[in-house]
Amino acid sequence: MLIIGKNPIYEVLKQNPKDLNKLILLKTVKPEKKLKEIVDIAQQNKINTLFLNKDQFLKYFKSKNKSEGIAQGVIGFMKDFEYAEMRDILDKCKKMKSPLLLLLDNITDPQNLGAIVRSAVCLGADGIVIPRHNSAEINHTSMKASSGAANMIPIAKEINLTNTIRTLKQHGFFIIGADSNTNKLIYEEKFEGPIAIVMGSEGAGLRPVMKQNCDQLIRIPMMAKIDSLNVSVSTAIFLYEVFRQKNVKK
Amino acid sequence: MLIIGKNPIYEVLKQNPKDLNKLILLKTVKPEKKLKEIVDIAQQNKINTLFLNKDQFLKYFKSKNKSEGIAQGVIGFMKDFEYAEMRDILDKCKKMKSPLLLLLDNITDPQNLGAIVRSAVCLGADGIVIPRHNSAEINHTSMKASSGAANMIPIAKEINLTNTIRTLKQHGFFIIGADSNTNKLIYEEKFEGPIAIVMGSEGAGLRPVMKQNCDQLIRIPMMAKIDSLNVSVSTAIFLYEVFRQKNVKK
Repeated sequence: MLIIGKNPIYEVLKQNPKDLNKLILLKTVKPEKKLKEIVDIAQQNKINTLFLNKDQFLKYFKSKNKSEGIAQGVIGFMKDFEYAEMRDILDKCKKMKSPLLLLLDNITDPQNLGAIVRSAVCLGADGIVIPRHNSAEINHTSMKASSGAANMIPIAKEINLTNTIRTLKQHGFFIIGADSNTNKLIYEEKFEGPIAIVMGSEGAGLRPVMKQNCDQLIRIPMMAKIDSLNVSVSTAIFLYEVFRQKNVKK
Repeated sequence: MLIIGKNPIYEVLKQNPKDLNKLILLKTVKPEKKLKEIVDIAQQNKINTLFLNKDQFLKYFKSKNKSEGIAQGVIGFMKDFEYAEMRDILDKCKKMKSPLLLLLDNITDPQNLGAIVRSAVCLGADGIVIPRHNSAEINHTSMKASSGAANMIPIAKEINLTNTIRTLKQHGFFIIGADSNTNKLIYEEKFEGPIAIVMGSEGAGLRPVMKQNCDQLIRIPMMAKIDSLNVSVSTAIFLYEVFRQKNVKK
């Protein structure tokens, strides 16, 4: 998997340097601080590192990414993203008092997916589930948008999210769906015990079949009659509200 | 000002149709629902509307935007964005019990600016202030990212945000800065009366001079040691927390 740009590569190197197979850098007379750090960490971890001049770099990048650009002077190749197994997520959750999972139905924009993953890591979610079809994947775009956070949380890919919901219920999870048409407001809900939050697509929201399978639908109050909040923003607000009610002091 | 794509144009037409000077559409045999609605509203409002075939449209779009693409089949031309006057925002706030303003220092990415404006409108902010320099502007990129919300909230452009803070203090505002290095957590703060929230740039956060001028610094707790939340996400969480404490029932 190709990974582009300083920050996502830096995060991978800090968190999981062994995941990086190869690093290609633009040769510069005076590399900036973060690029230097990247090279240092790569060398400590004996990662295959190649310096190219500008013409070579541009040509190489284009051959790999079918696009023009300088990619902030650094691209890397990672092991393909390893999705987690649902049973491993469940095993991990069993040991926790109030685990929090995030189910993302039909989030098709990798930027949104990456942004959500980033927020999920910052705001203490314990795992993410996406469907095998009709979903953005963890690729270099979502990885970059996540600032490398996709490596810091288990993400499972399940065939059918309604089955996943059924399994989660059997494991004691309370399933909360985000639905802008419901009456109950987010801050009227008490978030306790194992919780899974289900988010729908940006345009259409939760599909009816998903709504039917939720234990509770809630929404964020809105002052204005524009479409709604961006899905990555509303997901972050849901996560934040759970976090707040747990009164986390990190 | 050029405005691109169905949703932002639709929002402008719904909110302020008089702001749209001209509409260019791609001629299609079977236009989809939203495009039809756009044409209907445009015609009701006697907006100059032009249909082009694909070649003409592509050529026209490229001449105006210096980029390839079909722009979802619709582009529009708006009056240049009209920034609000600070004194008008203050006058409006005087009539309110607990107005909420947002000061954005050094937000240079128009996508982030637009996303923040969208959240600000949804979550009940009463005005936004950006600095005249070192800030993204309200252009077609930020307008699109805001889903047209930039037309629904007064946005002022001030020379010097520290002066703005001084003025706001004279008008009874309590100034709260977002600072990831401070101790006080967002949900330990009581948000009451007139409040201005100051957000810094994504990379560097609030500049020291801004921090010094804030009455209180707060932060969102973080579970993970990655850089931080995206600035549009953290701004939305700050706005949401104020909203929640007001217990808005919208």
